[in-house]
Amino acid sequence: MSESLANTIAAVQDKLRLTPDSARVSFQSSSRLQSGFRSEVSIRQHALVVDEPTALGGSDSGPNPIEMLLAALGACQEITYRAYATAMHIPLDSVAVRLTGDIDLRGFFGVNDAIRAGFHKIHGEVHITSSASAAELARLKAAVDSHCPVLDMLSTPVPVTLALITD
Amino acid sequence: MSESLANTIAAVQDKLRLTPDSARVSFQSSSRLQSGFRSEVSIRQHALVVDEPTALGGSDSGPNPIEMLLAALGACQEITYRAYATAMHIPLDSVAVRLTGDIDLRGFFGVNDAIRAGFHKIHGEVHITSSASAAELARLKAAVDSHCPVLDMLSTPVPVTLALITD
Repeated sequence: MSESLANTIAAVQDKLRLTPDSARVSFQSSSRLQSGFRSEVSIRQHALVVDEPTALGGSDSGPNPIEMLLAALGACQEITYRAYATAMHIPLDSVAVRLTGDIDLRGFFGVNDAIRAGFHKIHGEVHITSSASAAELARLKAAVDSHCPVLDMLSTPVPVTLALITD
Repeated sequence: MSESLANTIAAVQDKLRLTPDSARVSFQSSSRLQSGFRSEVSIRQHALVVDEPTALGGSDSGPNPIEMLLAALGACQEITYRAYATAMHIPLDSVAVRLTGDIDLRGFFGVNDAIRAGFHKIHGEVHITSSASAAELARLKAAVDSHCPVLDMLSTPVPVTLALITD
């Protein structure tokens, strides 16, 4: 597994070096609100349901959008740990992430516009099993945190353009 | 539905005004990497699978983390449109979102560290059906874009603290 993953990563890196145009790709998602706050999302062949808890007016048929963002960050950290541990030849037997996002709902609900709408802080733990030295693990964490795409997008603003279209 | 949602929103706003401490809440996610790049996520009673496409070394058993982030943004826009349309008494019959994120994979793969790891741009369309005037819809879009939690977190950095723990 690890050997084949190392080969895949090396092959992708070689390809991106040789043909930089192949590095520029796009990802898509499509979603549509159903009744209440329930949204059905399509991503390629994958389907997701997003909703709000009942206390926030939803029917709780799925995680809410900010929980989805935590899930995206957790999985992104894990995948980036495995990719960089493999590429750096650092042993990594398991990786699991627990995250908490702290929010003040007065922002979203427009009760106090001085309060931001999203999480004011995200904190958590990355649990790993590894026989690597503390120094190797510190190098691994630094490599992961500077190459994790979702962490990057929470740390450095992403330009977002949304056109409102009346059908 | 709309009347009951309006009552729920008004009740939540009243509660947040009267007891600001109740506005400070937290959300969590827990995930664990399985074989390859497949991650299983738990959010309260909800389960999700995140993975990478085969071209990126995964087994494609779910959307990848940056697709999940697009899904979170799309659903967040939709929910915020319904919440603010309801609260502002602006008619809104449907809302659907299509998003595209543009990335240069040389960032994530460490081929060129001048290139960011995440999307350098997110763009898309919010499609609505509504009998409201153009002016009302412009007011609605402004309210949504300034109160959408996921859009806020892509626009203004969120402090993230991740402790690496060796089990």
